[in-house]
Amino acid sequence: MITNGIVLQMDAENTRIQNGAVAVVKDKIVAVGTRDEFANWNAVRVIDAEGGIIMPGLVNAHTHAAMTCFRGLADDLPLMTWLNEHIFPAESRLDEETVYRGSLLACAEMIRSGTTCFCDMYLFEGAVARAAHTAGVRAVVGEVLYDFPSPNYGEIVQGFAYTEKLIEKWRDDPLITIAVEPHSPYLCAPDLLKQASEQARRHQIPLIIHLSETQSEVEGIKEKYGRTPVGFLDDQGVLAPNLLACHCVVLNDDDISLLKDHDVKVAHNPESNMKLASGVAPVPKMLDKGICVALGTDGCASNNNLDIFLEMDTAAKLHKVDTLDPTVMDATTVLRMSTIDGARALGLDHEIGSLEPGKAADIIVIDTRKPHLTPMYNPVSHLVYAARGSDVAYSVINGNEVMNKGKFSSLDEVKVMADVEEIAEEIRKANGTTEL
Amino acid sequence: MITNGIVLQMDAENTRIQNGAVAVVKDKIVAVGTRDEFANWNAVRVIDAEGGIIMPGLVNAHTHAAMTCFRGLADDLPLMTWLNEHIFPAESRLDEETVYRGSLLACAEMIRSGTTCFCDMYLFEGAVARAAHTAGVRAVVGEVLYDFPSPNYGEIVQGFAYTEKLIEKWRDDPLITIAVEPHSPYLCAPDLLKQASEQARRHQIPLIIHLSETQSEVEGIKEKYGRTPVGFLDDQGVLAPNLLACHCVVLNDDDISLLKDHDVKVAHNPESNMKLASGVAPVPKMLDKGICVALGTDGCASNNNLDIFLEMDTAAKLHKVDTLDPTVMDATTVLRMSTIDGARALGLDHEIGSLEPGKAADIIVIDTRKPHLTPMYNPVSHLVYAARGSDVAYSVINGNEVMNKGKFSSLDEVKVMADVEEIAEEIRKANGTTEL
Repeated sequence: MITNGIVLQMDAENTRIQNGAVAVVKDKIVAVGTRDEFANWNAVRVIDAEGGIIMPGLVNAHTHAAMTCFRGLADDLPLMTWLNEHIFPAESRLDEETVYRGSLLACAEMIRSGTTCFCDMYLFEGAVARAAHTAGVRAVVGEVLYDFPSPNYGEIVQGFAYTEKLIEKWRDDPLITIAVEPHSPYLCAPDLLKQASEQARRHQIPLIIHLSETQSEVEGIKEKYGRTPVGFLDDQGVLAPNLLACHCVVLNDDDISLLKDHDVKVAHNPESNMKLASGVAPVPKMLDKGICVALGTDGCASNNNLDIFLEMDTAAKLHKVDTLDPTVMDATTVLRMSTIDGARALGLDHEIGSLEPGKAADIIVIDTRKPHLTPMYNPVSHLVYAARGSDVAYSVINGNEVMNKGKFSSLDEVKVMADVEEIAEEIRKANGTTEL
Repeated sequence: MITNGIVLQMDAENTRIQNGAVAVVKDKIVAVGTRDEFANWNAVRVIDAEGGIIMPGLVNAHTHAAMTCFRGLADDLPLMTWLNEHIFPAESRLDEETVYRGSLLACAEMIRSGTTCFCDMYLFEGAVARAAHTAGVRAVVGEVLYDFPSPNYGEIVQGFAYTEKLIEKWRDDPLITIAVEPHSPYLCAPDLLKQASEQARRHQIPLIIHLSETQSEVEGIKEKYGRTPVGFLDDQGVLAPNLLACHCVVLNDDDISLLKDHDVKVAHNPESNMKLASGVAPVPKMLDKGICVALGTDGCASNNNLDIFLEMDTAAKLHKVDTLDPTVMDATTVLRMSTIDGARALGLDHEIGSLEPGKAADIIVIDTRKPHLTPMYNPVSHLVYAARGSDVAYSVINGNEVMNKGKFSSLDEVKVMADVEEIAEEIRKANGTTEL
C-alpha cells in the first residue's frame, strides 16, 4: 500500500486523487482511491508518501543504456568527429561484460530518477536484459542489426538468430520484452528491413528503428532510393503499429501522414537532438495528427544523463520556443508522453503507464517537501517544470520496492559505479591520459 | 579548508587541480593548490570533498526571487493571459512580508542548488535584501522603477528616494549590493531612464534593465521612438559598462555592435525565453563579438525553478540546435558564464567568480559519487550536461558554511516552506479553489 499522497492516475481522464492511496497485491495494482476508502485495509507494507505525489513510473522510450561508459568522454564536437574519433573507437572495445556493467549503472541511474521501464538498442543486448532483470527494472531490449558484421554476433544471419534466441530465453520473464531492432534506413538494406519486420510480426513484438534523425540522413536516403526515409520504409512494407521510430526530426507533411496512417509510434529525444544539433522534431504537428509520441533520453553520451524529468522540461520548452507558441506541449501532454503514451509506444499500455486496477505495480513516489517544489498549486506543473530525478523517493516495479529513499534493494550501487570506473580507466589509458 | 577534490578555479587559464584544496581565512580565500601543499596546515574546520568538485559558487544574473510564491500557478498560457489573469492579480496582493517570505524560499532553493550570488529585480526590494542577508547569500538587489505608481513606493520620485535609502542602508554590508533598476524601455519614459542612469553612475553601482525580450517589445519601441530598444537606450545615453541588460532576445547586428561598443553586460535566460516562447537570444554571436554574457533563471513563475545547473544544460543545448552547430557554447564557455562572467556582469569580478587568493570565499562542493555522474572523464562536462542542483553537497558564502549536505546554518527550511505555503493558501482562496 502506498498512501498519503496526491495520486496522479494518468488514466484516460487524468484523474487526480487528493489524500489518495494505491493498493498492490503481489505484482498488480488492485485498487486506487482516497485514503479513507482504505481505512480498514491491513497492509503488510505501507509506503508513506508524506503528502508527495504517487504516480506511474516513467518510461524512457529510447536509450542505449551501456553508453553510460562514455558519459562526458567527448562533447561539443561535430557529429562525425564525435562518432569516428571518440565513440566508435570506445565502442570497439565493448564486450558482454562491459555492456552488462554499463547497463547496470544505467539501471541504477534510471531507477533513482523515476524511470521504471526503458527501451534499449545496442550491442550485446543479452547483457542488457540480464542487467535490467538483475536491477528489477522493466525493459524492452533488442540487438542492433545492420549490414556490416557485428562485434557481437558476426554476420546478419546470426543477428536474426541471436534475436530469436533472446526471444526464446526471455519469453516468460515478467520484466523483459525482446524487440527486433534494425539500426536505421542508412545502415540497413531493404532485405534486412523486410526480414526484421517479418520477425517482429511473427512474434508480435515491437520493431524499433532510428528514423530521419538528421538532414544528411534524409538527403542520403533520397539520393539512394528516391524517397524520404519514411517513404522508403513505406516502400518496404515496414510501417506498422508495432514500429517505434526513434527521433523523426526531419519530416515533411507526407511523412507525418504516413506515420499516422500506419499508426507508427515515435520516440522523441529532445536533449540529444539539441546537443548533436540535429534539429527540432515536429512534435506538436505529430500530436495534432494523433500520432503517439513518447519521450526518450537517447544514450547518455549525447545528453549526458538519463533523467526523464529533465527531458520533460526540455520537451515542453523547446517546442514553445520553436513554434513561438507558449501554449503547445502543455504539462499534462508532456507527462502523458512519459507515462501512458510511453507505454503505448512500446506496446505495453495494457500492462503499465497508468495507475489502474489490474495493471502491473510500476509506481513512483515524489517527495515534494523541498524548496524548489514549494508551494504547490499544480502537481503536474511541478513534475514537468520544477522537479528533477533526485526528487524520486520510492520506486516500485512489478510490485517490488526496488528503491527506498536512494537505497536499492536489488543493486550494490557502490560496486556498480566502481565497475564502470574500471572501464573508464581502461579507456583513459587507451587515450593516453589519466587527467580529468 | 576545503580539500580532497578536483578544484576548478575558473581563473583566466581555467586551471584544474587534481587532489586539490582551497584554504580560507575568515571571509577570504588565502591559498589554492594541491592537497600536498597544505600537508602542514592546521585548519580549524575541514570540509572533505570526498573526490568531488570544488568550484566557485554559481551566479544567477537575473531573477525575481519572490516569484517563488507563484511557482506553477499558471503555465502554458499566452503571455498576456498569463500576466493579466494570473501574475498581475497575484502580485497585487504582495507586500513587504510576502516578498520577504518568497525571497527567503528562493534563497533556500538557490543555496541548495549551488547559487551563491543572485541579482534581483522586484517590488519591496528592501525585503529581498533582508532575506538575502538573513540567508547569508550574496545579492545585487534593486527596486523596480517604472512610469506608473508602485504598490511599494508610490510615485517615481519616491522610487528614486527609496533606492537612495537602500543604497545608504546597505552600503557597508559584505553581501548586499544595491542597483538601480528601471524595468524596461516600454515601461520607462526617457526621463526616468536618464535619472536612473545618473543615479547609478553617481554611486558607481550597476544599472539593470529588461531589454529586447520579445518581438512585440521591439515593434512597440520602434513605433514610439523610431529606434530598436537598444538604439533607444543609446539615444538616452544609458548604454554603459555598468548596464546589465536582461534577455536581449531580439537583436539585430547594429544592436549587438552597440552593446559591444559600450561594454554593456547581458543576462541570458534561456529557460524563461523558451517557456514564454519569446525566442532564442543570439548568444553565440554576442560571445563572438566579445560581449560578456551571464546566465539567469528569471523568476520561477516562468521557469519553474532557480537551478543554474539546469540553466547551463539548456543554454549549451539550445544554441547548438538553434545554429545547427554542435560546437557552439561548449561546456567551458557555459560554466564561465555562470561563474566568472556572471560576476563580471554584476561588477563583482574583483571579488567573486573564481577561486583565487584574495577573493571572497564563495565556494561550492559537488558530490560526484552518484550514478548519473559516473564515470568522470571531464568534470566540466559533468557540471554542464549531467549534474543537477541537488548534487551540491556544501556551500560556503563569504567564508560562512551556509549549507552542509542539505542542512542550512542560517535558515529553518521547514518554516521557510510553511510560510510560503500560507501565502499560496491565500492565493488559492482568492482564486476560489483549494484543489491541487
